[in-house]
Amino acid sequence: MEFEESGIGEECGVFGCVAAGEWPTQLEVAQVLTLGLVALQHRGQESAGIVTSNGASPPTYTTLKGMGLVSTAFSPEALLNLRYDNLGICHTRYSTSGISELQNCQPFVVDTLHGRIAVAHNGELVNAHALRKKVMRHGVGLSTSSDSELITQLLAFTPPMEELDAPDWVARIKNLMMETPTSYSLLIMYKDVIYAVRDPYGNRPLCIGRIVPISKLHSPGTGEGDTEGWVVSSESCSFQSIGAKYYREVLPGEIVQISNHGVKSLTVVPRPEGDLPAFCIFEYVYFARPDSVFEGQMVYTVRQRCGRRLAIEAPTDADVVSTVPESATPAALGYAQQSGLPYIEVLCKNRYVGRTFIQPNTRLRQLGVAKKFGALTDNFAGKRVVLIDDSIVRGNTISPIIKLLKEAGATEVHIRVASPPIRYPCYMGINIPTKEELIANKPEFKDIAGYIGADSVEYLTVEGLVSAVQEGIASQQEKEKMISSTNKSSRRVGHCTACLTGKYPVELEW
Amino acid sequence: MEFEESGIGEECGVFGCVAAGEWPTQLEVAQVLTLGLVALQHRGQESAGIVTSNGASPPTYTTLKGMGLVSTAFSPEALLNLRYDNLGICHTRYSTSGISELQNCQPFVVDTLHGRIAVAHNGELVNAHALRKKVMRHGVGLSTSSDSELITQLLAFTPPMEELDAPDWVARIKNLMMETPTSYSLLIMYKDVIYAVRDPYGNRPLCIGRIVPISKLHSPGTGEGDTEGWVVSSESCSFQSIGAKYYREVLPGEIVQISNHGVKSLTVVPRPEGDLPAFCIFEYVYFARPDSVFEGQMVYTVRQRCGRRLAIEAPTDADVVSTVPESATPAALGYAQQSGLPYIEVLCKNRYVGRTFIQPNTRLRQLGVAKKFGALTDNFAGKRVVLIDDSIVRGNTISPIIKLLKEAGATEVHIRVASPPIRYPCYMGINIPTKEELIANKPEFKDIAGYIGADSVEYLTVEGLVSAVQEGIASQQEKEKMISSTNKSSRRVGHCTACLTGKYPVELEW
Amino acid sequence: MEFEESGIGEECGVFGCVAAGEWPTQLEVAQVLTLGLVALQHRGQESAGIVTSNGASPPTYTTLKGMGLVSTAFSPEALLNLRYDNLGICHTRYSTSGISELQNCQPFVVDTLHGRIAVAHNGELVNAHALRKKVMRHGVGLSTSSDSELITQLLAFTPPMEELDAPDWVARIKNLMMETPTSYSLLIMYKDVIYAVRDPYGNRPLCIGRIVPISKLHSPGTGEGDTEGWVVSSESCSFQSIGAKYYREVLPGEIVQISNHGVKSLTVVPRPEGDLPAFCIFEYVYFARPDSVFEGQMVYTVRQRCGRRLAIEAPTDADVVSTVPESATPAALGYAQQSGLPYIEVLCKNRYVGRTFIQPNTRLRQLGVAKKFGALTDNFAGKRVVLIDDSIVRGNTISPIIKLLKEAGATEVHIRVASPPIRYPCYMGINIPTKEELIANKPEFKDIAGYIGADSVEYLTVEGLVSAVQEGIASQQEKEKMISSTNKSSRRVGHCTACLTGKYPVELEW
Amino acid sequence: MEFEESGIGEECGVFGCVAAGEWPTQLEVAQVLTLGLVALQHRGQESAGIVTSNGASPPTYTTLKGMGLVSTAFSPEALLNLRYDNLGICHTRYSTSGISELQNCQPFVVDTLHGRIAVAHNGELVNAHALRKKVMRHGVGLSTSSDSELITQLLAFTPPMEELDAPDWVARIKNLMMETPTSYSLLIMYKDVIYAVRDPYGNRPLCIGRIVPISKLHSPGTGEGDTEGWVVSSESCSFQSIGAKYYREVLPGEIVQISNHGVKSLTVVPRPEGDLPAFCIFEYVYFARPDSVFEGQMVYTVRQRCGRRLAIEAPTDADVVSTVPESATPAALGYAQQSGLPYIEVLCKNRYVGRTFIQPNTRLRQLGVAKKFGALTDNFAGKRVVLIDDSIVRGNTISPIIKLLKEAGATEVHIRVASPPIRYPCYMGINIPTKEELIANKPEFKDIAGYIGADSVEYLTVEGLVSAVQEGIASQQEKEKMISSTNKSSRRVGHCTACLTGKYPVELEW
Repeated sequence: MEFEESGIGEECGVFGCVAAGEWPTQLEVAQVLTLGLVALQHRGQESAGIVTSNGASPPTYTTLKGMGLVSTAFSPEALLNLRYDNLGICHTRYSTSGISELQNCQPFVVDTLHGRIAVAHNGELVNAHALRKKVMRHGVGLSTSSDSELITQLLAFTPPMEELDAPDWVARIKNLMMETPTSYSLLIMYKDVIYAVRDPYGNRPLCIGRIVPISKLHSPGTGEGDTEGWVVSSESCSFQSIGAKYYREVLPGEIVQISNHGVKSLTVVPRPEGDLPAFCIFEYVYFARPDSVFEGQMVYTVRQRCGRRLAIEAPTDADVVSTVPESATPAALGYAQQSGLPYIEVLCKNRYVGRTFIQPNTRLRQLGVAKKFGALTDNFAGKRVVLIDDSIVRGNTISPIIKLLKEAGATEVHIRVASPPIRYPCYMGINIPTKEELIANKPEFKDIAGYIGADSVEYLTVEGLVSAVQEGIASQQEKEKMISSTNKSSRRVGHCTACLTGKYPVELEW
Repeated sequence: MEFEESGIGEECGVFGCVAAGEWPTQLEVAQVLTLGLVALQHRGQESAGIVTSNGASPPTYTTLKGMGLVSTAFSPEALLNLRYDNLGICHTRYSTSGISELQNCQPFVVDTLHGRIAVAHNGELVNAHALRKKVMRHGVGLSTSSDSELITQLLAFTPPMEELDAPDWVARIKNLMMETPTSYSLLIMYKDVIYAVRDPYGNRPLCIGRIVPISKLHSPGTGEGDTEGWVVSSESCSFQSIGAKYYREVLPGEIVQISNHGVKSLTVVPRPEGDLPAFCIFEYVYFARPDSVFEGQMVYTVRQRCGRRLAIEAPTDADVVSTVPESATPAALGYAQQSGLPYIEVLCKNRYVGRTFIQPNTRLRQLGVAKKFGALTDNFAGKRVVLIDDSIVRGNTISPIIKLLKEAGATEVHIRVASPPIRYPCYMGINIPTKEELIANKPEFKDIAGYIGADSVEYLTVEGLVSAVQEGIASQQEKEKMISSTNKSSRRVGHCTACLTGKYPVELEW
Repeated sequence: MEFEESGIGEECGVFGCVAAGEWPTQLEVAQVLTLGLVALQHRGQESAGIVTSNGASPPTYTTLKGMGLVSTAFSPEALLNLRYDNLGICHTRYSTSGISELQNCQPFVVDTLHGRIAVAHNGELVNAHALRKKVMRHGVGLSTSSDSELITQLLAFTPPMEELDAPDWVARIKNLMMETPTSYSLLIMYKDVIYAVRDPYGNRPLCIGRIVPISKLHSPGTGEGDTEGWVVSSESCSFQSIGAKYYREVLPGEIVQISNHGVKSLTVVPRPEGDLPAFCIFEYVYFARPDSVFEGQMVYTVRQRCGRRLAIEAPTDADVVSTVPESATPAALGYAQQSGLPYIEVLCKNRYVGRTFIQPNTRLRQLGVAKKFGALTDNFAGKRVVLIDDSIVRGNTISPIIKLLKEAGATEVHIRVASPPIRYPCYMGINIPTKEELIANKPEFKDIAGYIGADSVEYLTVEGLVSAVQEGIASQQEKEKMISSTNKSSRRVGHCTACLTGKYPVELEW
Repeated sequence: MEFEESGIGEECGVFGCVAAGEWPTQLEVAQVLTLGLVALQHRGQESAGIVTSNGASPPTYTTLKGMGLVSTAFSPEALLNLRYDNLGICHTRYSTSGISELQNCQPFVVDTLHGRIAVAHNGELVNAHALRKKVMRHGVGLSTSSDSELITQLLAFTPPMEELDAPDWVARIKNLMMETPTSYSLLIMYKDVIYAVRDPYGNRPLCIGRIVPISKLHSPGTGEGDTEGWVVSSESCSFQSIGAKYYREVLPGEIVQISNHGVKSLTVVPRPEGDLPAFCIFEYVYFARPDSVFEGQMVYTVRQRCGRRLAIEAPTDADVVSTVPESATPAALGYAQQSGLPYIEVLCKNRYVGRTFIQPNTRLRQLGVAKKFGALTDNFAGKRVVLIDDSIVRGNTISPIIKLLKEAGATEVHIRVASPPIRYPCYMGINIPTKEELIANKPEFKDIAGYIGADSVEYLTVEGLVSAVQEGIASQQEKEKMISSTNKSSRRVGHCTACLTGKYPVELEW
């Protein structure tokens, strides 16, 4: 709901699982997959898909796809059929266009000369258009507009068949990564193996978890022998909900093979000399669930830190600090802690307000946000309020909230935004309004406070955001190095701020 | 969702609207009704019903009913048909039994000798069984188990028809109130009028609002001439969402007539000598939306006050205070303010977790609450946490949360409950587990901390709760007396604490 | 589908079953009920309802209701719950108004002073309006517009409660029959008994069947000892589909008690002196399934006889005889047999053509019936066709068929209608267009052949129809008298032809 | 329903339409497509798909697909979006496997190097397995098991891209036809053109119609100037329902281009020297709608002729002739005409009996067919019945019908089957039970009469069937030659009788 209003949205979430040890095992992979996917539901609500395999040779794949939330997309009866499968991948999709189409639903499954593969993709290929041409020039017809199908067809025919006696999927995946720099986090299931792949810029997140006996979930020293299964996910929040321990991130450019024998790093495809990683900074600001961990730090903590820094950059002479529920709450608490102002709640959200199914007339449009939020009047009447929001995209959501607060008795309302203004489109998997729709590009932005009816408006600076994000990483670097002994160069720190600065990590005409 | 888990639930919400002035007016009554009902959705999610009338003589009524949330129960197309109606009532219902039945959906509409009436009811008649017998002894067949049908049939035949030349609905309603002391808040629509009725004990809430032009919504001195319509609702939170000003409560025992000519108090049926009002104290503790106002005070404020008092009654040697989201948050903030301990968030709720459609196996049952809540580890690892909950009913929800927090690193978890233990059943509209299921009645309650895995558990006392509720009312009394010049005796303060103390406001064998 | 087009329709079908002998038995009553109801589906497709009982004291009733065909109205899961019940009644309803309402769905179940009863009704009370007034004057509110609820409330309060120590349902039913002369075939379930009731004029059909072991289904001499259950149905066609033997009709005015002990005639309420029975003649002409038996004769045979008589009354100089499929086929075969002309098929029906979901434009409207029927050109090109239809109501269906045949090569098309023109409304359970809509009342009727584009049009006379119906009964009278020893006067023959002649069996202002 | 019981089923139906003349025109192509598809609904009820195009350069295609009948698969709202398109193709699919999958739903739409194409296919490629291998060897991944995708990918990459400057779809289609001999009737939409293709053996039907003004539909001399649009369809029955005139068949091996400029035969790909055409003879016997025309003769007439020939080959000493409704009726009338025995109806079909949703117990299984058919007892009691069926596949449907008739009083029941016994599988688009399931391959077949309970059983001979089919063609040959001046060699007559004789038109290992 918030996504729709703010106008920015994640493309997708991916999740995979392989039962560890001798098959069959006690682990019900389909259950793990479904629960894991539910934990990624915030990354996409349009459609969901799951593909499981018995891992035999040749494998039997079973596919379920449906529109809507995971809970409506998969029926309990259909899930029962997946019960005995040993590995699988799944996907939840965000609606990027008006028309929802089941056929764009992932994972994409195809039969190739060397067997059946299933592919789930989070991201957006910057050079999709050129790649589509390439694929079609090879004589392949493409039946959807999805990058997933494009990726599967690229995997199927390059490198040329004649060079291969047997399928060398790793060579094919590396080849694919040469063809397209970003952005993708991929899960590719083939027979009894899942390949987890992250683009060289690490633009989209991907991390690995280890399922252990519930009883050992929180004991520090579990060995590999305790492993019941391996999971791979867009976000670590899904590990909590299935009882898995965080294992490590897939590195930028890395191809990891996950099988019942464990996790094996196959290679790390490097970035061009001099390029930094470009992990999407908006995953921290907005998209990710606050209990997820990226680069060794909890998202909630980063948001809190953004709030603290905002309090330093943009202090306010006010009585109370509050939040636009729910996503801005960590930043608001950070702002309150730093500023010493008391934190209160000013809005009560009606969680049942969904689609406006009523033909709106003038009166109702004027009411606007009051359908969604009730003012907790007694908490702020007669007071000066600092209201923290996580981002302002179009500016049409915050304005009626300010009006609501003022009418309910706030003497002043100061808006503090815990991220910088969005000014540029994203071509790497985030759905952002057109440049013209962004409030920061409009003439009214000069007097944004007046435009939205606030007493003042301040944004976090780009530098402030970047340092709030990166200051937590330094202390984590050591810890991670101990866990994984991977390519050092990819451990350099860098984040994509293209939507804020216009500096894209790769040339767009790639 | 919380309701299901905690095992206590409200029965229903009622809402009504009459367009003011000469009909037809600009006000779209059906829109107001639907939005008002959505704002009461927390009071019932099983089914919804709406009945509108053109108010003509004889009137044309239109009825919509459906299962589920308001948004699914009414289709936009069906709502369009109500567009030109001038008044109406609606109802949202809580599932009290396993089997959901459309035929129990309210409002109940019947043709009587004197015309068609529609009835919406919140509450539960303590003497329903005896009344059913009485109705049937008169030769009436009852086609549902709902109190609503019972009420309509009682209204239809008593007082005896032969005593009446024309319908005297007020006499009939008074007669009904003589037959049954509590609990009911009723809306009765007849032709061009809505009668709003609250039982003499005022057990269920009911209040009146006035729709004014949006532009005048927050100007203090709007006169009656500005009135666009009148609304009546279980809770005032619905007024915010439709742009209405709070007008006043319906008093215990009062019959109020609402028409396009305004609001008129017809009578106040008194309680037996010496009886106090008995407004359900759990409306404050649990059921109502925090932005609603009862007896002149905002529910959120009362909850915060409960938290403060709890901090005094049960202080804790700890590092941080937190909440089980979302309903306990005001109490947690109150506890933090009073105790001086910092307030933090410890749990992140996955709002997409709904029905468990997966056949749970042992592993998943062990995981339990982790599907629903993610631990915000960094916020509390290594700390002693005071966790505030609003009530503990069965004890099976809080226990896995404590486990989750401890496993994620909390060194101590102290539970503080912002209401007293529930020990007795409610016969007045609240769905409470059987006595045996209530944790406070179990042998384990002696060592409740050990049972649920907490380091300590403390409850707010009954006295503490009552005084947290009532201390805010005194200061409001004056204000209200100025607005309404009604029966003084009903202005005495009193609350039903039967589920906590076993002291019921009326004899149950009534 | 035909119903919709022709514009006349039956109101309903009723069906009941009681397992015979000591309960529980092997007979699955719910299965029998569902199959029996499916066999009556042609009598109503709007909604279906079933109520079963375990027959205990007090009994437990289970009710299922749903919109649409039996197959969609009842889910297999829901039916499973009825599995162990010992008796039940069910009902299928025809849509008489634009708005389909679940709440009008029968059977109607009510709790009365003396217990719960369930009522299923086929017919329409001619004095419903006066009876509603009477019921409401007693102080009863009526929540639906259905005669079923009216009947249950009348049963509940008359004769006055005070005259009764215990429920005397038979007295109540007799009393009901005194209040309303026609039209009704009723099933009333009370505890362990079904009362089957037919109005004194016998306007709607009702007959009884006996379930025997499949092996003895066709052996002539099965005794009562072989009885596995008793069924009662609007039409005997349902007996075939459940493996029951036809037992006998319920007589006009008769109250029959059906229990596990067998079938018992309780009384026969007489008609006013001199009145003949008034069984709806359109059951023969149009509504009933051709394999049903009324008054000892198969409906198909009567229709065939109508065709033969039509051939005598209205002979044609033509080459071939054909039918508008499918209901007119027996009459067409009868016409062919009598006239000696060869019978052929001229139209092929597309059974998949349902609701026209396409916005029709001029071109499509011109096409009309061609969507539904394909011309079997080679069978009639260059020939003179006699086309038999069973009735012409509005005249808008037959006209495009004639056009289709002519354009496909028929040199002449002569319409012969196997029933007389419909000119009057029915107030006894049949849905007929308003007088103005009936083609027989329009000025164009004078040149009906020209109007519909036929070379000639002839109808069966009223006398012809009546004698085609009644000539088969005489020979049956003896047989039936042997089976049942009931009131002789009710054995007189008479049929309601009100829609054809305007002679109603009772005064309409009753 | 019959299909399910008999166990044989058609694969699909295809339909296309192009508006004639300057675009836009008055013709609503989407309406024509939908109605045309409804008329082919008997060829497949699993799913339906439609693709329309505005025919611009580049074209905009719109696709609708859904499960179930056309009426449920396409919503009226969705169809509205296709309103202004100028050409399109559609498809209805028969369920060949237990699992219905939306993704196998046709038409298949793909983007290729030279633009977007849409393909609808009726038939089954005998060498599908080898072709899949070939496609995958080229490096293409196949995402479905449907022949349609296979065909589109073959079209996309062969002949090799490098040989082409611009798309030469005709060369590609010819190339495809070289790769696979049978069976296919194809519609390929590209930009503003539909290519209609029939395999060299003409195994599946395909014919062309011309939409003319309704007023001129039946005037013989309409010129090309009157043409409003062109349609192409699996069966001509669909032309009647949209107001189109039959134009001609697509010849075996022919590629026809249909555009707004008219119909143009591009080429005819020849069969191997000496091979006859192999039009599926079961289209006549069973699949096609009786009002369709193949090879110049109406299917109904052929079936009637089969009945006549059966009367000659297998005369019966009996009293009456009847049919298993509805498909065997033409043959039964033919048998009656030839034999001189009177034709009567013996069974009344309950059209509402659908899926058996009741858990069947022993009693119900014994009842069997009685749920579906009511015996019209009076028509045959005491008589010897010849019952004509169109085919006997498994033998489990006819047996209970015979029992029903005998128990209802038939003294003898003689089965005469208007086609020869089915003994072999079909690999060309017809779904036939496995060899073991076919009654003709079971030991019981020796005494088939005893096995099914008949007094005698006789089948039409293969020679009889073939001559019944072919004797009508000779007289048509001249007429057709005048209409179309195409390749003479393809005008030779030949029919596929592989399921009866095991003689397949091509080697199966092709």
